[in-house]
Amino acid sequence: MATEAVDAVLLSIGADLPYLTGYEAMDSERPTVLIVATTGTPVLVIPLLEAPRVEATNVELASWQETEDPIVLVARALDGARRVAIGDQTRSSTLLSIQEVLPDVTWLSASEVTSPLRVRKDPGEVEMLRSAAAGVDRALERIPTEVRFSGRTEMEIARDLQTMTVEEGHDVAMFAIVGGGPNGASPHHEPGKRVIEPGDLVVCDFGGRRNYYSSDVTRTFAVGEPSPEQEGVHRVVLEASKAARGAVKPGVTCQDIDRSARRVVEEAGFGDLFIHRTGHGIGLEVHEHPYMVEGNETPLEEGMTFSIEPGIYLPGRFGVRIEDIVACGATGVDELNRADRSLRVVE
Amino acid sequence: MATEAVDAVLLSIGADLPYLTGYEAMDSERPTVLIVATTGTPVLVIPLLEAPRVEATNVELASWQETEDPIVLVARALDGARRVAIGDQTRSSTLLSIQEVLPDVTWLSASEVTSPLRVRKDPGEVEMLRSAAAGVDRALERIPTEVRFSGRTEMEIARDLQTMTVEEGHDVAMFAIVGGGPNGASPHHEPGKRVIEPGDLVVCDFGGRRNYYSSDVTRTFAVGEPSPEQEGVHRVVLEASKAARGAVKPGVTCQDIDRSARRVVEEAGFGDLFIHRTGHGIGLEVHEHPYMVEGNETPLEEGMTFSIEPGIYLPGRFGVRIEDIVACGATGVDELNRADRSLRVVE
Repeated sequence: MATEAVDAVLLSIGADLPYLTGYEAMDSERPTVLIVATTGTPVLVIPLLEAPRVEATNVELASWQETEDPIVLVARALDGARRVAIGDQTRSSTLLSIQEVLPDVTWLSASEVTSPLRVRKDPGEVEMLRSAAAGVDRALERIPTEVRFSGRTEMEIARDLQTMTVEEGHDVAMFAIVGGGPNGASPHHEPGKRVIEPGDLVVCDFGGRRNYYSSDVTRTFAVGEPSPEQEGVHRVVLEASKAARGAVKPGVTCQDIDRSARRVVEEAGFGDLFIHRTGHGIGLEVHEHPYMVEGNETPLEEGMTFSIEPGIYLPGRFGVRIEDIVACGATGVDELNRADRSLRVVE
Repeated sequence: MATEAVDAVLLSIGADLPYLTGYEAMDSERPTVLIVATTGTPVLVIPLLEAPRVEATNVELASWQETEDPIVLVARALDGARRVAIGDQTRSSTLLSIQEVLPDVTWLSASEVTSPLRVRKDPGEVEMLRSAAAGVDRALERIPTEVRFSGRTEMEIARDLQTMTVEEGHDVAMFAIVGGGPNGASPHHEPGKRVIEPGDLVVCDFGGRRNYYSSDVTRTFAVGEPSPEQEGVHRVVLEASKAARGAVKPGVTCQDIDRSARRVVEEAGFGDLFIHRTGHGIGLEVHEHPYMVEGNETPLEEGMTFSIEPGIYLPGRFGVRIEDIVACGATGVDELNRADRSLRVVE
């Protein structure tokens, strides 16, 4: 807070609040807001009906009833603050309400303050992420023998992945992208009613939460024997993944990690088809700092954890992505996901 | 927009965007923003990698690459706008970025513009909600014979409820509160590792989405024969529910619905223990306008759909809540949930 010269930080939904207090706000029209000023006890403004959920003892509770205006309590806790950082995911409706009663405050994003705290994981956090990664790795290993692809919809396969994620020890499965055939060329495809056919490549990208820490892994499967072209594209993506993983060590910049993967894809002639950054940080949230993207000159430090997920997307035809979570170790990469990365054949 | 004198509406995450376009933005650090100005074609600013997801044809796509700044595209589409409404759930980080480049814009909440459109459901929407309600009703009817409570954790029971919600035709189960014994006194209790015991009351509040429309239902179960006190509290809540449901018709205000339920609870001497409003609107979102709360003088109109969910919460002991979704019909209440509301005994 001193570095950014802020008088107060205001946190609501998202992971900053549980990171600091152990309490996660519900995402709803009823605002929950923690105000941390440079002096005094932090104040948690919370709906009365949610106050019994709070076990955190390092905050003062200011609960509001349904007929009260929580913004009055927020404004009171911000009294005198001129420069305030607000949690990135806080609803705009909440920010606008506060701006209306405190028009002279200068606002900035709380991630300026909280990212430096969260971005380097301590060894305990790395182990939590390793354990989550191991869970989805076990689910991945079960796929070729337990999940039938051909003749079933993407939605059905997505449900199987989510069920296995929970069976393998996650508290909750949070997402599952299953993109078959041409749908694999849409990196964030929403699994739908398309039926998987022999000859398809299928991008499976899924994850969840185990003990509050996130998993996120992608493998691409071939339904029946892949064509030489499919194998070739997969080989390039695997080489790009290997190059980026191999580049991880303290001092290398995030943009260098992106460039390591992108160079391989470009040299193979697919540069225009690798349409997203190489990776994102991961921890309490599935996507958080640091981002492996051109322009991010942040140097890696020991304890940073992030995805490496190069992909090649051929519009209307198919896509390939391979995603792994890694940690930056003291001298090089520490691979948290280790499931087979080859183009495995499924039925 | 003319009523609120706004030059443009800016929508991101939440249900306003899919309501108007059929496309739902992903909730992530990569902003997706629709700009609807009073003239011209609406512009959807979207990450390039998500552009293949869009099927909407009533918008102009402005996709941005990972190394580009989407706020430049947003500012271009807002050129000349002085009064802009922004989607309530839009991330604060997005709003702050836009405010930085367009400091002279006056902002208001988009729900001022979109709620009047969304709050009255057409007959097709009411049928979607009826069908979602019927799904969770079927799950509720299965509970006494299929779900064992005693000796199992709240989390295990919550998973059963979510599994049944999907089995009964939902596309996704979105939440399940299971509050046993003293945890039932925390209205938004997060299901945990407490093991359910004979003698507990257990509040089960769950729902999800079926064809984009939401369900949300609560019943309270007794593990073994309930005590006379438990039966008495449940009887009061059921009477409160009945009174509020019976009061529904066009012209009655939202606060009157709240008062109808609250009066019964107050007369029974439990007024201080009914610590939340009587209900919330429901549609594409689980919570939306109109809210059944003291101070809301909005008159009900045909097609408004909302929950009626009185509760009594005895701190440290137990809680009871009964929640149903209803529609305001032409002359009275149209009950969408119809599952048995009695205090059913489970094992």
